[in-house]
Amino acid sequence: MAKQMKNQAITGRDVDFTQWYTDVCRKAELMDYSSVKGFIDYLPYGYAIWERIQSYMNARFQAEGAENVYLPMAIPSSLFNKEKDHIEGFAPECLVATIGGGEKLADPLIIRPTSEVLFSDLYKRIVSSYRDLPKMFNQWCSVVRWEKTTRPFLRGSEFLWQEGHCLFETHEEAERNVRVFLDIYDDTGRDLLAIPFVKGRKTEHEKFAGAVATYSVEALMHDGKALQSGTSHDLGQGFAKAFGIAFQGRSNALETPWQTSWGVSTRLIGALIMVHGDDNGLVLPPYVAPIQVVIVPIRQSEPGVLDACEGIKERLSEEGIRAKVDADENKTPGWKFSEWEMKGVPLRVEVGPRDLANRQAVLVKRVNGEKTIAPIEAIEKEIPSVLKEIHGAMFRKAAAFLESHITHVETIDELKAVLDKGGYAKMAFCGREECEARIKEITEGGTARCIAEDPVEEGVKCPVCGAPATMVVYFAKAY
Amino acid sequence: MAKQMKNQAITGRDVDFTQWYTDVCRKAELMDYSSVKGFIDYLPYGYAIWERIQSYMNARFQAEGAENVYLPMAIPSSLFNKEKDHIEGFAPECLVATIGGGEKLADPLIIRPTSEVLFSDLYKRIVSSYRDLPKMFNQWCSVVRWEKTTRPFLRGSEFLWQEGHCLFETHEEAERNVRVFLDIYDDTGRDLLAIPFVKGRKTEHEKFAGAVATYSVEALMHDGKALQSGTSHDLGQGFAKAFGIAFQGRSNALETPWQTSWGVSTRLIGALIMVHGDDNGLVLPPYVAPIQVVIVPIRQSEPGVLDACEGIKERLSEEGIRAKVDADENKTPGWKFSEWEMKGVPLRVEVGPRDLANRQAVLVKRVNGEKTIAPIEAIEKEIPSVLKEIHGAMFRKAAAFLESHITHVETIDELKAVLDKGGYAKMAFCGREECEARIKEITEGGTARCIAEDPVEEGVKCPVCGAPATMVVYFAKAY
Repeated sequence: MAKQMKNQAITGRDVDFTQWYTDVCRKAELMDYSSVKGFIDYLPYGYAIWERIQSYMNARFQAEGAENVYLPMAIPSSLFNKEKDHIEGFAPECLVATIGGGEKLADPLIIRPTSEVLFSDLYKRIVSSYRDLPKMFNQWCSVVRWEKTTRPFLRGSEFLWQEGHCLFETHEEAERNVRVFLDIYDDTGRDLLAIPFVKGRKTEHEKFAGAVATYSVEALMHDGKALQSGTSHDLGQGFAKAFGIAFQGRSNALETPWQTSWGVSTRLIGALIMVHGDDNGLVLPPYVAPIQVVIVPIRQSEPGVLDACEGIKERLSEEGIRAKVDADENKTPGWKFSEWEMKGVPLRVEVGPRDLANRQAVLVKRVNGEKTIAPIEAIEKEIPSVLKEIHGAMFRKAAAFLESHITHVETIDELKAVLDKGGYAKMAFCGREECEARIKEITEGGTARCIAEDPVEEGVKCPVCGAPATMVVYFAKAY
Repeated sequence: MAKQMKNQAITGRDVDFTQWYTDVCRKAELMDYSSVKGFIDYLPYGYAIWERIQSYMNARFQAEGAENVYLPMAIPSSLFNKEKDHIEGFAPECLVATIGGGEKLADPLIIRPTSEVLFSDLYKRIVSSYRDLPKMFNQWCSVVRWEKTTRPFLRGSEFLWQEGHCLFETHEEAERNVRVFLDIYDDTGRDLLAIPFVKGRKTEHEKFAGAVATYSVEALMHDGKALQSGTSHDLGQGFAKAFGIAFQGRSNALETPWQTSWGVSTRLIGALIMVHGDDNGLVLPPYVAPIQVVIVPIRQSEPGVLDACEGIKERLSEEGIRAKVDADENKTPGWKFSEWEMKGVPLRVEVGPRDLANRQAVLVKRVNGEKTIAPIEAIEKEIPSVLKEIHGAMFRKAAAFLESHITHVETIDELKAVLDKGGYAKMAFCGREECEARIKEITEGGTARCIAEDPVEEGVKCPVCGAPATMVVYFAKAY
């Protein structure tokens, strides 16, 4: 887009990570700042990434029996107020509509910040017997949370997400569902986004407003900060009781069902940027990239060059690979290289007259700049494995970074040092909310990301209060 | 769902069409009434129909170069007020948010009723040269229009739709775009929904607030009322001028671009119900049906029956056909037949012990109850052509109904008689807004649906004012 400056160096990651992030968001044309304060415009390239995430997840969700639905974008205040913890958690960040059709609304409408309330209300209407269970409904939509400071994809007044809301006969089934969907999120990281996560249960302090237990997957950004990337909640029976959902059980008695909810949002795009990006811009893993292969002709006016490029594109498309030829006459190949590097296209194919003579093409991997040669003839058979290699390399690189940024600590001083430097500190503590609050204060923002599976060793004390430690927790500063 | 009564006769279409419609919406489990007044819950079966419409249209849109984006769901009043006709058209039906994060908003936010304003604002930011054109952005989202009386899928305070917004260098390109997307809507009717449309330009009185010209496709329901099913607008330069969108043209002078917008909504689901449905419930055309084939075992406890059903399902799935086996032990085959008839599944396959012995299955077409026999062996090769036949039969049936309900009239009395009976009356008139208003009054609600392509014959006068007729128009009562 002409108004955005292109092919200019962006801020270095280690010079100013925040500025680098904004530069990438804008110069890769993922989004633009809307005139609606706190809101963004998702541009085609950014939105296409979201569509690929949706498509992968929809298939996984449906294999588990989840079904897509769509519920209202507005919730009457009177309904919202039914679950006490929930309203307390969300009230401060609500956008509220008070006028409809020119008249003042008797019951103001809260623009949905999340839909536990509406799903509970729906389930109350349509569930009456154990034969109606389980219910596993999911919706893709936008939610609104009024934010003072915003950052593209990470924190904004409106974001896109999916929210699954399920209802079960037994707590065991609900607990299993919470774990299954957390694992799907973990798989999405590993198999689609090339992002390794740390995962586990949240502490009492960090859990969702209204949940019995919250689990999350957490990614680690290049600057050493964590990013909560997906959550899965065991809602127990709180909403069901507040909304009066009941069903006739197998023994004919009236029972209360068990509820879960789980979600990921466009924050995943933020994670993609900050886990994989480099000083030349975005680096996209192949399976989520809107364009997987860009084909750049060299000396494109020479006979046969453009035809060869188009031929390669055709054959790649037939193999289901998303390829594009950049045949713009007004730009040099070098200019195009930088442009597609900025946009993070995983693989570049170069074809010039000399390559044609040798019946070969040059392949360049975005992740490491590695160049290889491939015969033009059967290039569509070779590229799928190259893309697979790229995906593997990106995941291993991110996993190595994550592993090298997990430090076991035992004291508050050690904790503070690790969190100041960036990365996770694994530390045992008592698990009480007041100690967690104190840790946040001392470390200037460090929070418990999730509880590790490590057992607490005999005799270990909470470094804040001295009481016996009850859990080992991943602490980090987070987005 | 247990709370909704099943397998009871629904109201007959010709007894009470309105009640029949509501019965089908609910008993086919397409939607449920939300506790949010004027809003509905789109249940899995209804939403899956919408997803299939999206998938068909996305492919068509992308083939024309359109790209999906997502823009904010709220529009500041100050921005909304920039285009005069537009604000006048929409102001009476806006939902307005006035409180954010507990504080009163200085610039109240209108929950988007349509997004011309936001797309114009985006284009102003990202377009500066003819090289940036054309722009063809589309978004799938929900919009809110505050309605006093609502009906599922037809009129509601919130509905799902797609809105395409394009910007061009010349008016010719814009005009072509308006026609191309109107044709895509027409094709969607013919090829996906098996619905024939009447299509054409809207009169001045009926055109979109802010448009130079509006075109629409209009379907005819079983009760003889028309349903506007898609619109495509030539917006001229009005929004571009109001929002200050300009670009450097080929001759370096600053020029104003030409804009279009086009959209369809979940009204299409309403059209599907009311065009094809019968007294046994929904009748879905095969290509949009969430379940294309339901396989019902007869005497399912006998050896081999369920296995044969599952085998057929597997082989159909491999051919890309959406099939389901209903193996519920607690229901009789007859009960299942009615249930899947209510849900409009296009084809039923029955397999019982006797069929097994003969290595055959019974196929029953939902549209006309026609029974045929097919060998089980290669059934997956035969069913695609059966589905194609069903689609063709449904389209032809609807087209015959449409044609038999278009009557050429010359006087107001004839017009009123046709509109009272139901269907379209084709009539020449002067085209002036006041005569159109008078026609609406006399016919108690008849409106100009769109302008026919028929030439106006020499000497024909407007039957209202006696002035020379300028256009032949399809009049009808409409939803």
